[in-house]
Amino acid sequence: MIVTVEEESKQLETALGGRYRKVRMGGAVVYVFSQPVPKPMIDRIHNATVVDISKPYQLASRDFLKETSIVRIGKAEFGGRAIQVCAGPCAVEGKEQLLESAQAVKEAGATVLRGGAFKPRTSPYAFQGLGEEGLKILREVSDAVGIPVVTEATSPDQVPLVEEYADAIQIGARNMQNFELLKAAGRSGKPVVLKRGGGATLEEWLLAAEYIILEGNWEVVLCERGIRGFDPSTRNVLDLAGMSLVKRLTHLPVIADPSHATGRRDLIVPTARAAVAAGADGLMIEVHPRPDEALSDGAQSLDIPTFGEAMAEVSKIARAVGRE
Amino acid sequence: MIVTVEEESKQLETALGGRYRKVRMGGAVVYVFSQPVPKPMIDRIHNATVVDISKPYQLASRDFLKETSIVRIGKAEFGGRAIQVCAGPCAVEGKEQLLESAQAVKEAGATVLRGGAFKPRTSPYAFQGLGEEGLKILREVSDAVGIPVVTEATSPDQVPLVEEYADAIQIGARNMQNFELLKAAGRSGKPVVLKRGGGATLEEWLLAAEYIILEGNWEVVLCERGIRGFDPSTRNVLDLAGMSLVKRLTHLPVIADPSHATGRRDLIVPTARAAVAAGADGLMIEVHPRPDEALSDGAQSLDIPTFGEAMAEVSKIARAVGRE
Amino acid sequence: MIVTVEEESKQLETALGGRYRKVRMGGAVVYVFSQPVPKPMIDRIHNATVVDISKPYQLASRDFLKETSIVRIGKAEFGGRAIQVCAGPCAVEGKEQLLESAQAVKEAGATVLRGGAFKPRTSPYAFQGLGEEGLKILREVSDAVGIPVVTEATSPDQVPLVEEYADAIQIGARNMQNFELLKAAGRSGKPVVLKRGGGATLEEWLLAAEYIILEGNWEVVLCERGIRGFDPSTRNVLDLAGMSLVKRLTHLPVIADPSHATGRRDLIVPTARAAVAAGADGLMIEVHPRPDEALSDGAQSLDIPTFGEAMAEVSKIARAVGRE
Amino acid sequence: MIVTVEEESKQLETALGGRYRKVRMGGAVVYVFSQPVPKPMIDRIHNATVVDISKPYQLASRDFLKETSIVRIGKAEFGGRAIQVCAGPCAVEGKEQLLESAQAVKEAGATVLRGGAFKPRTSPYAFQGLGEEGLKILREVSDAVGIPVVTEATSPDQVPLVEEYADAIQIGARNMQNFELLKAAGRSGKPVVLKRGGGATLEEWLLAAEYIILEGNWEVVLCERGIRGFDPSTRNVLDLAGMSLVKRLTHLPVIADPSHATGRRDLIVPTARAAVAAGADGLMIEVHPRPDEALSDGAQSLDIPTFGEAMAEVSKIARAVGRE
Repeated sequence: MIVTVEEESKQLETALGGRYRKVRMGGAVVYVFSQPVPKPMIDRIHNATVVDISKPYQLASRDFLKETSIVRIGKAEFGGRAIQVCAGPCAVEGKEQLLESAQAVKEAGATVLRGGAFKPRTSPYAFQGLGEEGLKILREVSDAVGIPVVTEATSPDQVPLVEEYADAIQIGARNMQNFELLKAAGRSGKPVVLKRGGGATLEEWLLAAEYIILEGNWEVVLCERGIRGFDPSTRNVLDLAGMSLVKRLTHLPVIADPSHATGRRDLIVPTARAAVAAGADGLMIEVHPRPDEALSDGAQSLDIPTFGEAMAEVSKIARAVGRE
Repeated sequence: MIVTVEEESKQLETALGGRYRKVRMGGAVVYVFSQPVPKPMIDRIHNATVVDISKPYQLASRDFLKETSIVRIGKAEFGGRAIQVCAGPCAVEGKEQLLESAQAVKEAGATVLRGGAFKPRTSPYAFQGLGEEGLKILREVSDAVGIPVVTEATSPDQVPLVEEYADAIQIGARNMQNFELLKAAGRSGKPVVLKRGGGATLEEWLLAAEYIILEGNWEVVLCERGIRGFDPSTRNVLDLAGMSLVKRLTHLPVIADPSHATGRRDLIVPTARAAVAAGADGLMIEVHPRPDEALSDGAQSLDIPTFGEAMAEVSKIARAVGRE
Repeated sequence: MIVTVEEESKQLETALGGRYRKVRMGGAVVYVFSQPVPKPMIDRIHNATVVDISKPYQLASRDFLKETSIVRIGKAEFGGRAIQVCAGPCAVEGKEQLLESAQAVKEAGATVLRGGAFKPRTSPYAFQGLGEEGLKILREVSDAVGIPVVTEATSPDQVPLVEEYADAIQIGARNMQNFELLKAAGRSGKPVVLKRGGGATLEEWLLAAEYIILEGNWEVVLCERGIRGFDPSTRNVLDLAGMSLVKRLTHLPVIADPSHATGRRDLIVPTARAAVAAGADGLMIEVHPRPDEALSDGAQSLDIPTFGEAMAEVSKIARAVGRE
Repeated sequence: MIVTVEEESKQLETALGGRYRKVRMGGAVVYVFSQPVPKPMIDRIHNATVVDISKPYQLASRDFLKETSIVRIGKAEFGGRAIQVCAGPCAVEGKEQLLESAQAVKEAGATVLRGGAFKPRTSPYAFQGLGEEGLKILREVSDAVGIPVVTEATSPDQVPLVEEYADAIQIGARNMQNFELLKAAGRSGKPVVLKRGGGATLEEWLLAAEYIILEGNWEVVLCERGIRGFDPSTRNVLDLAGMSLVKRLTHLPVIADPSHATGRRDLIVPTARAAVAAGADGLMIEVHPRPDEALSDGAQSLDIPTFGEAMAEVSKIARAVGRE
């Protein structure tokens, strides 16, 4: 159950008996109860909106906010009429590579630059990213090209650093249930792109978002990037029905990442089209000027001309579903 | 390796040493080798097209036939420019129900009627279909309304019966590796709609198609209907990246079944749009005049007005990807 | 709900209103209701045992029969104190191979010979078994060595043939929901070994057994052989917790097949031990005199000396859990 | 490739060209190469042991160390002849509850006490653990009862705290690829119990262990606790074949957690037996004095008498496989 009031009220808090979590939402104050609240207690509440929610996640639920929330990364509005596209290399490898990528993806219509500085890699022997040096390059290139930038934080103590340099903080699939990281991102002042874990149900994903919101950060974009499957022919299984369902369950904007979902360059265009047709508010696509030389994820990165074609294709679908 | 010749040739067969499977393809004759063929043997072949194929499936492979095959069910051409839609109730429940469904789906633009007479049900206590009586109704309604009909056979001895009454034979997901049924369908004179098993890889699916083709029946339409997943929020996981990939691997037309894939009425429209955007050659959708009274699969069936809207939505996507 | 009476009774059947399935069980008659039965109707039943069952499967449920059923294949009693071991080659390749296998496995302590004559193979180009010729060899060897034999039927019309030559009919994992085959096996006079499908839940598996019993055949042995998983390091995922749970849910005996579950020779001994420790009533193990020359499944077959060691290991575990 | 030398050597490091990771192992120094090393470079190495390893994980590989490593938590030796059992409540709820649990599990034969102070919970509204207060209780109880204690750290900055109070650091399944946490645990001076992620392959698990070892901490115990599956009848799928295989792939000791794997109290005894029969070096079992009042995981916790019976059962299997 959620109780929303215009102003904080000691009197109400006393009436509610302290069994709530309190979150600010714009000027208003929101009290969240995870346990059923006794009827007499509810009757004592005045000048408040009370919403009953049957799901384990509450603030993230569309039962609470009926309209899709708009989350802004720079000027890009996720959840609005326009399809937002985050594009760029898997990892920042150097200034030149990133600059070339950023200019190209912006020109092709991308609205957010992506690029990893802290890279969570399965193997400790794989390229681990440039770290803070990478963050600096991201900031410089972002400013130079005029495109906002999202990059990943992989532990709570990286959050302040990422917040300083980037326009949005990404939480990767492997960290979807890294609850201390979720809380740190929730305390930051920047929007968060929260990827679905490869073994996570929709409910677990939304509860991860709830962790972020409960700390006061409502700016969460969900990103479907494929779940674990038994067929080795694609890297993961892109769950577009799940993505479509999650949009019904939550007011948060939802995007899809066909690069990580499929792991194959030749499937990015058709699955990007499909994601938009299924209702995605945006896409995240790996683009590299020379995919075959990429230090990570080359096999699933588009080169720049192909990214341009992808954008044209996606654009047609966007218009067909009444979006831009 | 596949050797294609215009005319059967004893001489060639002697040269090939008998280590092949022989299939007719239109007027031509195709010899298939699953084992590597010695170089000298190949050199003895004349007036033949020889194609090397690295996949375990061969006749189904796009390495063999570069162009997408056209499979005709009645006048509906699967694999051509137009998106074909098979629609109708999960099960034939009676003549009236089917007639009402058939007229409505045809009017809304469906090109093939679907409806089960032999129903493979998880529980022996669930409605098992009307059997031959159901087939007769399917034929009557099909003729009355002027729409071809596809229906399922669940064992080899049902194939001649289904062949007699229906325009195409469906092989369900649970029977995808019922090899005797595949062979029986391969010996029939009717096109086959082959659903992907819920636990089947793309390769296993294509090898199931190969079983059918090897018996001489090239008229196979593949149908993706979702794979098993860990999240109970949808019935299955619709694998559109897999569907898109399978279209690259095979020349056979591929359609998608959002009804069985999602198990939820409210997800059919977005996933149908997504399937077409991902390159599906058609759709299979459950439609029932009164879904809440359906004897099976009501929860995933569209009512008639919603099916009309679905067709309008799908139509916009079809045009956006250059199809009809 | 299940109503058991000593003798068939027209009067009772009239009282029950025809809404049941009727099955003989020994001398008794069993009426099964899949729908709730109205209280007044129950009150009219006399001289009968009435059991309420909350599960979708009923005759297979341990709520119906509290004691584990004993299923006999030849003299081997599945479900009793002794651990039964079915062993032999994946496929019958010839008389000599089978004879050598049969003598060796019997000597090592196996109580049932296994060997495939009709082989359901993923690829149509793989060895498909010797068919009826293989059945004849199985019968001859079985008689010569004095060990009963189980072999697979892959379609309803093979059942009478398998029944004629073998002591038990196996239904393979791919055919677990081949309902016409289940029904044919249910009408046969021989015990059935029913493998769990690689994508099947415990409930689906038990409902498959229910199909067999409903035709009057109570002699069903369940066989866990691994479910589909995402890790390519083993062929399937052996679900021993599921096997242990299914033993609580059903009165039917349950065995495990470590060969198909793991696909790796080096894992058969530890997983066979584990299966018995988890409560398996028996094992099915692939044994080949020369695994590296096997026409199918060589990689997961034990050679004869290793099978002997496996039996010794399993024996220790059997004794540790109070079995033989 | 791994090069081991008795003493650090500038000369060798120069010869190796800096393309290695350096780790101390007891008195020796280990240089690890993830890339193939040119033959001439190898030829320049003297007084060193060179081992070629074909796996992506190297230090964790049994190709490197042939003997199972012994990891000590207090006096409990994981990887030796004796089966070690970690037991205790899911979460520390108070001193009394923990003391009662600790005394009881020690008396029944457990060698390590478990109990969570920092609890990673799917829902932010679920009990999150007592934090540092819980750690203090763990230490007190551990000292009072004379049993070492393992407890979880969920972020890098908790590691020093956990290290201070506990005898071993647990990394939970959700954090298996929380690489910053792995590195922090690798820099600590305490042994680490590393659970397998619910969506992790064996290779990913071993690479996670490699992250820890590369920081210089060789004291790693792997813990299989079930992987994600499609059947809701158990919480996870206990992968005992995988556990058995991982013991072949690594020299690290491996234990199993039947409580989290099954999520059902009634399956713990049979799966614990099975794990030991499959070769587990130990077990982790949730025990609570009053499971029905537990603040978390009550449904999968044993009460104290049942835990005693479990130990007796496990003991029989241990002896049957030549262990204690």
